[in-house]
This record gives sequence, structure tokens and C-alpha cells, in this order.
Amino acid sequence: MEMENSLSKNKPLGVSSVAYANPVLIMGSGNIVGQMENEGPLAGSFDKVSDDKNDMFGEDSWEKAESQLQKQAVALTLQKTCAQANDVRYLFAGDLLGQNIASSFGIKDYNIPLFGLYGACSTCGESMILGSMNIAAGYADRVIALTSSHFASAQKEFRFPLEYGSQRPLYASWTVTGSAAFLLQDVHANGKSTNGRQIKNVLESEHGGKVGITGVTAGKIEDFGIKDSFNMGCAMAPAAAWTIATHLKDFGRTPKDYDAIFTGDLGSVGQQALFNLLSQEDIDISDNHYDCGMLIYDAEKQDVHAGGSGCGCSAVVLSAHILPKLAKKEWRRILFVPTGALLNKTSFNEGQNVPGIAHAVVIEALP
Amino acid sequence: MEMENSLSKNKPLGVSSVAYANPVLIMGSGNIVGQMENEGPLAGSFDKVSDDKNDMFGEDSWEKAESQLQKQAVALTLQKTCAQANDVRYLFAGDLLGQNIASSFGIKDYNIPLFGLYGACSTCGESMILGSMNIAAGYADRVIALTSSHFASAQKEFRFPLEYGSQRPLYASWTVTGSAAFLLQDVHANGKSTNGRQIKNVLESEHGGKVGITGVTAGKIEDFGIKDSFNMGCAMAPAAAWTIATHLKDFGRTPKDYDAIFTGDLGSVGQQALFNLLSQEDIDISDNHYDCGMLIYDAEKQDVHAGGSGCGCSAVVLSAHILPKLAKKEWRRILFVPTGALLNKTSFNEGQNVPGIAHAVVIEALP
Repeated sequence: MEMENSLSKNKPLGVSSVAYANPVLIMGSGNIVGQMENEGPLAGSFDKVSDDKNDMFGEDSWEKAESQLQKQAVALTLQKTCAQANDVRYLFAGDLLGQNIASSFGIKDYNIPLFGLYGACSTCGESMILGSMNIAAGYADRVIALTSSHFASAQKEFRFPLEYGSQRPLYASWTVTGSAAFLLQDVHANGKSTNGRQIKNVLESEHGGKVGITGVTAGKIEDFGIKDSFNMGCAMAPAAAWTIATHLKDFGRTPKDYDAIFTGDLGSVGQQALFNLLSQEDIDISDNHYDCGMLIYDAEKQDVHAGGSGCGCSAVVLSAHILPKLAKKEWRRILFVPTGALLNKTSFNEGQNVPGIAHAVVIEALP
Repeated sequence: MEMENSLSKNKPLGVSSVAYANPVLIMGSGNIVGQMENEGPLAGSFDKVSDDKNDMFGEDSWEKAESQLQKQAVALTLQKTCAQANDVRYLFAGDLLGQNIASSFGIKDYNIPLFGLYGACSTCGESMILGSMNIAAGYADRVIALTSSHFASAQKEFRFPLEYGSQRPLYASWTVTGSAAFLLQDVHANGKSTNGRQIKNVLESEHGGKVGITGVTAGKIEDFGIKDSFNMGCAMAPAAAWTIATHLKDFGRTPKDYDAIFTGDLGSVGQQALFNLLSQEDIDISDNHYDCGMLIYDAEKQDVHAGGSGCGCSAVVLSAHILPKLAKKEWRRILFVPTGALLNKTSFNEGQNVPGIAHAVVIEALP
């Protein structure tokens, strides 16, 4: 593996990538999920699980429940890292609901200056790109990247309220109820909180090693003419293929330079489409590709059809599963590629296509 | 006025500001509006005006009409500056519709890597902050910041479809139909397009001088408990007050350091609230404050009540009115503060407040 960390300054690469001179530290992250997410293969690895089978998190509406997810994900992150809200200069946050209301109402009481983002289920990648760019540029010592989704609020927002009992096709995915926040820090920052305590690198103290973001590749919209909003895997696969191929070209790497490549929520149907599209460019990632949507649920036992999806899907899998493995050096370098389907109820009902977008983040175990 | 342009590197200031070592050039911008916007005080200053009294821009739905606005604003910007889409490394874009569909469908054919943003009507400020941060950090030579709104799509999205003929209270504002795109460029960039032609600084060639972004201040969510979604001026005024006060403190400036301070779309009711809130901190901007929503319409003659609003409001006023005056050195330094109300139909109907957010951008005539 080459040594881009020896760069003397941040370097734009190729079409849409940046390699950072210094890794942007991921100090820690907090995650919270619904009950079903904790009944899948990652059971037991989450920080907090709903204690209510409807995943209302103490609220009286699904939208407010999703705001609670974001609020608690930030609270967990601050608590674990011993940081305070005013140690965080900017928040990069988004969700799937119209006008980002889960974020707005979830985080307003923290009083952290906010950049609201929308990239559908790719938002976790977008927030980590813009957050890490911000830190690598020296604009902030510390930022939080934050995303969420809630099964019930997403069904209401994009499809039908649960009470209708609508059937879902077999290639449909299941929106993850969950949220994760990531505290990013400048490698040169004075790690003291405003309350005088040392801000803790939780990945190092709990899992044995530091982890950082060393480069990023922004995605563009790809529209292959998919008209079926349930078939999000195929709608997003072209965007994932573009971003992965562009990333490898921009950085001059091959899939072998990564221990694992994670897409966000293509599911089993979209994964096959991704392999097919990449094979047309002579890229084979079938040996080391994982999809967060396929990792979070046991598709057969949990009857989720193609897999998990939603802004929260890739976020909680990164937080609960991927980052600890990097810290333990089970993996040295991974590519994290959250994938989003760009539609809303109106665009879909007015007959428009479902284009996709995907953003890529290089995350490495640090020496 | 102090000389922050003599900074040797970009400098984070105070709570949420950054002063740039070199100004980020605004090479030019394209704007397009509906018929009513061209019947107000700024008539004749827009690049393109709808030739259809329903402002459908050749499309068969309001949402698609708004996508056309974004598509054409980018086309105008590229055309005026002699740039091509592949000269633009990143696009920072957003709108008011759920899941940013106006942006997604308006810009997908340009194939420019995209960061989707949502800050309600503050998005024009958010896009210029993140876009200029990106360039000042050396990640890109050239980016476009882009926002839009459409009266009819916004009424349908937030209130009632026009066919219902609902009455609006007198303190309500009128959503501007319009879009503007801004081509930002690194002051050190090689100004050649991929097609070999020189990329033109339109502000210099058409209006006599260069204009650049020299600093930014990100806003945070302020919630004063407003419950009436028609009273957006009062919902947003606290956020504007926070951002302006924080900006002045972060930069060590007073309102006198600015020839003009522009808020986005507070309207006449929100303007008064802003003055009151700032006076509590001994800040008086009444001599040099303008609101884009009050500049774009003749409130009485055009029956718009409190003034214009929407993502497109501050964007087209900046593009058609403010930037040319800076280029002509009628103003030397202005503060541009787009203001956003954070709500959607669901949050409003479920009884939640309407919080606000505002982002500030320092724009200067360059020597």
C-alpha cells in the first residue's frame, strides 16, 4: 500500500477526490438502533437499543422518534469521548425526511453551528467528506457528522403509513431504525475540552488503535432510468459503480488495496448489479465487498427481503461494526461508500426516474 | 477597514467564522426568474425571465419547472463565463422541496460531483460557505453554488396547492420563483477551460471589477417558539440576529465596517424583529440593512404582503443586484445573510415550532 500520508499538503486527485496530508481522526462514535436491528447478525454491538417494540424512543410521533435518535446519538458520542457540545465547532447532519426535520429538531438544543445536508442514504458519506475536508483545511478542530433513519417515518415519507399494511416486493429493502454520530478531530488539535478534561480517543482506548479518514471521493448523480422506487438497489448501483471506479482511478489503486469495500444499502439485488457494472470496467470487488444493508439483518430469518437501507444503515454499521475492527487492526484500510436514491413521493408519483448518488470515504487503522 | 487579506493562511475566527487568506473569486453568476419577479423594483436586471405567465418553463409540473430553473441558471452561468460543466469540480446545491428534488433532477445531466444541501431559505448562504471553504482549502479550482425556489411548488410543498385559493395572512411572504448559480474560482487557478478558452470573470468584464468572498460565518438553529408557519419573518429573525452578532464578534467588526448588510427573506415584519433583537446587544444595523425579500417586490403594488421569500429570493437578488454593484465599487464590502425557516408540512401539522437558521458570507470588491 502506498504512503499518501507522507503528503506535505492536502492534494486534490483526479476527478473528484482529495488525499489528506494528515489523517482526520475519528475519535469515537455513538450509535442507537431499534429492536429489530439488535436481533440481526450485529446484535450486542450497538451502544443503545430501543426498549419499546414500536421504537418510539419516548415520543408520540415517528418523526419525533427519529429526532430522538439523532439527539441520543450525539449525546452518546459526547459522553463516550468526554467532549461537550461546545467543543464541537460544526455539525454536518442530515436525514431522509422532507426538509431534514429529524436533524433540525433532534439537534437544535446542542447549539452547534450546522450545515444541513441531503444525499438520501449517501448522507453519512457526504457528512464525513465535508466534515473531514473542513478539519483537514484547518477550519475546525472538531466536528460531528450525523445521520439517521427510522423505518416507520421513512415508510410514511416515501411509501405508505404502516397502518395500511401494504405488501412489499421481494427486491425491496427495509429501512433501518438507527442513528450514529462521529466525532472527527484534527490530528494536531489540543485535545482538551472546554471543561478542562482530555477528550478521549475511544477507538484507541476501547479497541486498541487510532482510526482516521485519509481521503475522500465525492459522487455524482447517475440515472439509469429505473422507475420503480422499491428497486433502490438497482437505482443506486450505477452511482456506487461510478464512485468506486472513479475513486480507484483518482487514487491509482486497485480493489486489493482495500481489506474491504462497503457500500451503504444496495442489498442483495443491488450488489449483483454493482458487480456486473464494475466488471464492464474490469474491476472485480467480489472478494472484498460487503454491503451494510446485508450485514445488519439476517435477510431470510428477519424477512427483510433484499436487506437494510436508510441513512442510518451505513452509519450504525460503520459505528458498531467497522470502526472497532479497524481499531483492532483486523482491517488496515477500508473504503466506505454510502449509497443514496434520489426521489421523493412527488417525483415518483409524477413518473420521474430514481437516480442514485454515492460518496466514498477512505478509513484506515493508524500506526 | 482592516486587512484580513494579508493573512498568510485561512484562519478560523471565534465561534463559527473563517477568514480566508485569499479571496475566493466569484467569476460570474446566472439567474432566471418568473414574470412577477421582473415586474418589481429589480425589473430588467435579470438574465432570463419566464415567457409564460404560469412560470412553467416548458414543463408540465411545478416541480419540473423548478428543476428547469436550476438547469438554466447553471447553463447561463457556464455560458456567460465561457466555462464548461467539466471545468467545475463540485456542485453545492439545494432547494426547498422534499428530498431536494428540484436540484437532483435539474442538475443530473451536468455530471458534476454533487454535495446536496438543505438549509431552507438559508441554503444560498450555506452553499457559498461550503463552496468557498472548499476552494480556499485548495480542494477545487472551481465550484458552483446553486439554489432555487418556485412559488407554486413551494405552496404545494408547505401549504396548499394554488387551486385551493387559500387566503394568506398579511405577515406572510411570497415565495420567489427564481434560481441563481455562482461560479467560484481559486484566485490562483489557471483560468483555462478544458476546451482551451479562457474562463471569463464576468463581473470584471461586464461591471468593471473583481468580486470575492473573504470570510464566512456559519449559523446555528435558533428556536424562539414560533408556531405559525406563515410568520416566517419572526421565526427567522432570531437566527439572523445570532449570526450577525456572532459574525461581528468573531471578526472584531461593527456594522459600520459594511456598506450594506443583506438578510435573505425576513420581510418587513421580520426586519423589525431583527432590529429589536440586535438592539438588545447594542448592535444597530438600521442604517445599512436591506432584506432581499423587501428588495425584489414592491410589497404594496404587487400585493405580496411582508415581502419575498424562498431559496431563490436571496440568490437572484445577490446575482442580479448586489454583485454588479460590488463590481462597480458602489459598495466595497457587504455581508450577505440568507435566512431559513426549518419546518415541513409534517412538523408543522404535528404542532412543532418553526426554528430558524442563517448563514453569513462576506463579499468584497477586490482591488
